[in-house]
Amino acid sequence: MYYELKFTCNIKRKGERMKYTGWTICNNEYEAEKKRSRDALFTIGNGYFGIRGFFEEDTEDVDRLGGIYMAGIVGRGTYPAWEGTSRELCNVTNIFRVKLLADKENIRITDKAEDFYQMVDLKSGMYSRGYVYTTNSHKKIKISFVRFASMHNRHLAGQKIEIEALTDNVEIQAGRFLDTNVTNLNKESCEPYPIQPGRNHIIEREISGNHVVTTLDDVDKTRLYFAQHLESCGENRKQVTDEFACGETEIFVLEKGEKRIFTKVVCAYNSKYDKEPEQQIKAFLNADICYEEELRKHTEAWKEKWDVSDITISGNEDDQAVLRYNIFHLLCVCPEHTDKLSIGARGLTGEMYEGCVFWDNEIFKFPFFVYTNPEAARKLLMFRYHTLEAAKRHAKRNWFEGAMYPWQVCEKGIEQTPYNVGAYYSIHVISDIAHAVQQYWNVTGDDEFVLKYGAEILLETARFFAGRVDYDEEAKAYVIRAVRGPNEYDVIVNNNAYTNVMAVENMKTAEKAFRTLEEKYPEELEKFINEHNVTKEERQKWEEIGKNILIPYVKKDKLYLEDDAYLKRRPVDMKKAKPTGKRIIDTTIPYEALMMYQVSKQADVVHMMNLLPHMFTDEEKRIAYEFYEPKTCHDSSLSYSQYGVMAANLNNEEETYRYFRKAAYLDIDDRQLNTISGLHFANFGGTWQLAYFGYAGISEDNNVLYINPNLPKVWNEMKLTVVFRGNRVKVCVSDKKLQLELQNKQGELFVNVDGREYKLTGEEPRIQMDR
Amino acid sequence: MYYELKFTCNIKRKGERMKYTGWTICNNEYEAEKKRSRDALFTIGNGYFGIRGFFEEDTEDVDRLGGIYMAGIVGRGTYPAWEGTSRELCNVTNIFRVKLLADKENIRITDKAEDFYQMVDLKSGMYSRGYVYTTNSHKKIKISFVRFASMHNRHLAGQKIEIEALTDNVEIQAGRFLDTNVTNLNKESCEPYPIQPGRNHIIEREISGNHVVTTLDDVDKTRLYFAQHLESCGENRKQVTDEFACGETEIFVLEKGEKRIFTKVVCAYNSKYDKEPEQQIKAFLNADICYEEELRKHTEAWKEKWDVSDITISGNEDDQAVLRYNIFHLLCVCPEHTDKLSIGARGLTGEMYEGCVFWDNEIFKFPFFVYTNPEAARKLLMFRYHTLEAAKRHAKRNWFEGAMYPWQVCEKGIEQTPYNVGAYYSIHVISDIAHAVQQYWNVTGDDEFVLKYGAEILLETARFFAGRVDYDEEAKAYVIRAVRGPNEYDVIVNNNAYTNVMAVENMKTAEKAFRTLEEKYPEELEKFINEHNVTKEERQKWEEIGKNILIPYVKKDKLYLEDDAYLKRRPVDMKKAKPTGKRIIDTTIPYEALMMYQVSKQADVVHMMNLLPHMFTDEEKRIAYEFYEPKTCHDSSLSYSQYGVMAANLNNEEETYRYFRKAAYLDIDDRQLNTISGLHFANFGGTWQLAYFGYAGISEDNNVLYINPNLPKVWNEMKLTVVFRGNRVKVCVSDKKLQLELQNKQGELFVNVDGREYKLTGEEPRIQMDR
Repeated sequence: MYYELKFTCNIKRKGERMKYTGWTICNNEYEAEKKRSRDALFTIGNGYFGIRGFFEEDTEDVDRLGGIYMAGIVGRGTYPAWEGTSRELCNVTNIFRVKLLADKENIRITDKAEDFYQMVDLKSGMYSRGYVYTTNSHKKIKISFVRFASMHNRHLAGQKIEIEALTDNVEIQAGRFLDTNVTNLNKESCEPYPIQPGRNHIIEREISGNHVVTTLDDVDKTRLYFAQHLESCGENRKQVTDEFACGETEIFVLEKGEKRIFTKVVCAYNSKYDKEPEQQIKAFLNADICYEEELRKHTEAWKEKWDVSDITISGNEDDQAVLRYNIFHLLCVCPEHTDKLSIGARGLTGEMYEGCVFWDNEIFKFPFFVYTNPEAARKLLMFRYHTLEAAKRHAKRNWFEGAMYPWQVCEKGIEQTPYNVGAYYSIHVISDIAHAVQQYWNVTGDDEFVLKYGAEILLETARFFAGRVDYDEEAKAYVIRAVRGPNEYDVIVNNNAYTNVMAVENMKTAEKAFRTLEEKYPEELEKFINEHNVTKEERQKWEEIGKNILIPYVKKDKLYLEDDAYLKRRPVDMKKAKPTGKRIIDTTIPYEALMMYQVSKQADVVHMMNLLPHMFTDEEKRIAYEFYEPKTCHDSSLSYSQYGVMAANLNNEEETYRYFRKAAYLDIDDRQLNTISGLHFANFGGTWQLAYFGYAGISEDNNVLYINPNLPKVWNEMKLTVVFRGNRVKVCVSDKKLQLELQNKQGELFVNVDGREYKLTGEEPRIQMDR
Repeated sequence: MYYELKFTCNIKRKGERMKYTGWTICNNEYEAEKKRSRDALFTIGNGYFGIRGFFEEDTEDVDRLGGIYMAGIVGRGTYPAWEGTSRELCNVTNIFRVKLLADKENIRITDKAEDFYQMVDLKSGMYSRGYVYTTNSHKKIKISFVRFASMHNRHLAGQKIEIEALTDNVEIQAGRFLDTNVTNLNKESCEPYPIQPGRNHIIEREISGNHVVTTLDDVDKTRLYFAQHLESCGENRKQVTDEFACGETEIFVLEKGEKRIFTKVVCAYNSKYDKEPEQQIKAFLNADICYEEELRKHTEAWKEKWDVSDITISGNEDDQAVLRYNIFHLLCVCPEHTDKLSIGARGLTGEMYEGCVFWDNEIFKFPFFVYTNPEAARKLLMFRYHTLEAAKRHAKRNWFEGAMYPWQVCEKGIEQTPYNVGAYYSIHVISDIAHAVQQYWNVTGDDEFVLKYGAEILLETARFFAGRVDYDEEAKAYVIRAVRGPNEYDVIVNNNAYTNVMAVENMKTAEKAFRTLEEKYPEELEKFINEHNVTKEERQKWEEIGKNILIPYVKKDKLYLEDDAYLKRRPVDMKKAKPTGKRIIDTTIPYEALMMYQVSKQADVVHMMNLLPHMFTDEEKRIAYEFYEPKTCHDSSLSYSQYGVMAANLNNEEETYRYFRKAAYLDIDDRQLNTISGLHFANFGGTWQLAYFGYAGISEDNNVLYINPNLPKVWNEMKLTVVFRGNRVKVCVSDKKLQLELQNKQGELFVNVDGREYKLTGEEPRIQMDR
């Protein structure tokens, strides 16, 4: 996503490591300059909320930027989008605002804080944080915070605070608020740009005793409703309301050794996606809400998530925790409460890319849901169905046919990429969406979805490509000119292999879908064909294009080319181009220069082969890997995982593990130097793919589940679940043996393990083999 | 200059016409919303100063943006340049600030002002303005202002104010200041961007009784010195100084019918380009300065300018005035006081493009100076010589050899184009500079310049191209990949004909220069060759490249192609693409989409043919014109004039005149809708070229001056001067006859008129022929 470069801060950070155990990620060091980056790292969420790991008791200006985001909730942006003005993910009311005084002294963290920790418990989706504060008169107080966003009822979030007087009696004043005094971060506030004030998207506030309503500056004038139930054993509780916040404060003396606990449960609704938000809030305020009970249900919900989503590995506790961290965020971010939304590049963990959805949604994150939570996967696809009209408008406005799904879409499916940075060229996103439809269908067998929604997506995307190709008289072939493939360092190319192959695949998939549906649901299909004016001619045209498209390939070398002029570019010395860990474009040569050179920002041909593994020979894959790997600078977070998947499939264990480490630890080590602006969700999905498609070697073709595992030496065993065509199968792999167990009794599953076919049924649900 | 698009305001303006007579451009209508655009239109200057037509007595905020610019005086810009931070032309101290009170009422212009006029007298380079003001108690006062920037002593400027009580006695308070309370305009202050406050570049001020010193925020911490001599017959003059301004006020009663006149002379020096500015200012303050005397010398200097620069036409008074207006600004803007500077795209008339210099400097404006003022032309080239080191650094930083003159340079020759909008590709500027060196040499015969400076420019630019070409095994030819030609609507192309032809010309010119100098100055050349390590091999390489470069040409159609893939792009219906007068990219389809289509922003192949007219046949020119003209949308101000020149050379009278009108009236009619941000100097030069190269048919080849005139029907006669190889010749053309007169007695001039050769000498200085 090339234009990110304008958001990158020039913060110098060395790779750093924290502590990981099987289910926790913990940091024991408070460093002010890394705080905001770790705010991102310790985000929790439930698909409705994304809540960064900001500090409840902050009182600095910066903390108005804390970062609580809600799926699909945006404010008015700053630049012209391709329809109307851009939008941006909106930092909403701070539901966890706390103000603590010890002997009237404002408690806030400083470098002197002792025993600092911040930790996310992956199993239960809880974030906790604490430290020992020393007052000016040398009294020590221990403070800790716990929070969660309920996975059971996604409108709820909980907070617990503990305060303990360690050395002396101390007078504590504790305030807990819903605070609407928040702003977005201004993207240009990073060096070297002049600092700009943050943008405030709240244009109206209604503040009451225990709830607030804010109105945003977006086109829908969205109203957000928040309410809270506060629990405390105190007696001097006082309601407080000002122009921005509501809540209560209480004053009490904590005796030496004494501990006080406060809890609260917050509830949120919005006018954009929720029904009757006002009534919902009223009901919540009237209900009997208990923190511990909500916590229990939340934890239970997380357990169910992990039952199917976890990948257990033994042999390396770090890798285990960090792999789970990657999966954890995919679970945290998925908007399962609606089918109107999908997942942004940075999820709900930061403001970069304005919360928008890109191609990596379908290609990187989506497979995780398809193979572990098909209902969620279906909802994510429904977002593309709901925005099909916008994609058709986009095609028309750009003088094309069919549906031109934009590169970077807001919640309404409208192109948000600023003009003239390449969105127009990045058309592979369109076939990527079609690919996801096909993948969903292959893995789930959900005909009903395809008939009702998927076929229309396949049709309109195929139509787009049929109109986007040109016939080149010289080459005697169809060509696709002026595109940008996954390698974004090639500004504009002709006949990008990935793009052309996927475009043809898109048209083939549409035709195949019609044929399949024709057989199974002839009446429904006929109705569809009539409704959408699908002509015989256009279907023939798809076939003709598929047969005669130019795919750049050097026959004698069995080498697929990224694009038809790749070999005409100058080779580049990677040591000269990228002397440090920083991106090429941030160190040696500007983005626009890279057109001159054979340099790939990320996997491109290799990625194409990962997507369609059964279309290419192992030799072609090896040749491509060896050709492109040294030419790839991995300046995109989308690169490591795809090279890793390919390395695994080529049985290159050392390389695979090297890439696994790079991908899995990407945010934890802040490898891209921009975790501060949000976590890298494509890479989370990619890391999962590396484990799932790479190490476990899972793929599918023609109704058969393939498993070709290849564990790294440092792992002894790996366990995971596959949900395939209504079956749920547990896979357990070690270097010695492989075990499969079908979990549903009515199931029937064809598997191909290491090249041999098996069938699992309710009667014979288990196979085990030595390897 | 593609990235201008971000600066364009969406102000809806209809084409509008003002009054022109032979020597004046006058506007008799005050319209608030057009004021700032007319501020630009009524700019005056002397190459040291550029002073927009802002109102002296303004008191609104906006008037802090008035607009007085000084050549090469810049402040710190807002974005990263390719070395350091960008710079921008700095709005300096308002030397003409006036505050007028009538019966204590602030006089400022409103829509109710009567008899408004603003006028520039082209002959004397003076701007005058006036109106009748009516006080709240219905008294009428006539006010007028006159100003000039001295063409005699470029450090001086003069101001005259007249106030007349028309109907009643009135108490007047008149203040005249040097006011440092000024800011730059913020580029993003146009819709739809949020309004930003203007940037103030003054970081320090010293205000004294009659002079001020300001320090700027540029890297040089430039100090600007201003002083004034005030004349007045009043007796109640009072010196006034505050934190921003100094000057004097006086109060007096004007009786009905009485008129009072104030004059002042201002002087300016700066620490960046002037010697001993402080002493100069002191000397000025101690001198006996008289407004009328300075005005006399100024007017005399303008007369000398016009003697050689004027093009007289009879038959159409509008065209006469407007053609002069175009020439006038070329005279106003040329920094003849130094050889360290050149001319920005908007001269000193607005802040767009930050005052930077582009290719159009050499290709559009430079010819005017070569043919009318060779000393000035030499100085403009010296700017490129002084920035040769910066161009060599730029090449190195971009992994190239030789000198890579940047696309958009600040006064120090550093690339100022924001990253990633194509500066890296726009390499034709490099050969354009070499072309200007050759043109200067051809027209002046100034061997000394070439030996001392020009040869080095030719060498290093040739070296750049020798390293920039690639050998294409498939095409069996040298190619230049990833460039942007003059047609900026084609984002990136390979083998742009203009670029390749000019690159080869660059290398040929270098080789030819060495051969010529070898013969005439063998010793000096040998020294040069040794000093710069010019090898035989590299000179041979230039020749080889020249012989084997790919120039896209369709032989059977005799058609030169803009680039090697031009015909692969889709044809476009211009009515669909550009349904209104607005630019395509502002109405129908974004800039990045245009790569898909056969659409040219401006002359490209046609322009190449204009630059090297003797290299192409008339048939090839006609074919190119007819092919590209309907595909050209003229969204650049650089287009009309070149199509006009070609139309003239093809004897297409109607088309030529149509293009002449479009070019000549471009700013006066605000055709590009951005005159507000500064006048279009390339178009001024282009308009002159249309008259000079087009109508008069002047060109040169091999020491011979060619004249092939072709007047439009509406013009009866055209007179102009050519300075060629030390000779000054007056040309007088009508449709009936042509007359040439050599003005220098020692001269000797070979001319070719309508295909026949003549020789003019001191003995036979005149020829006249019927046509």
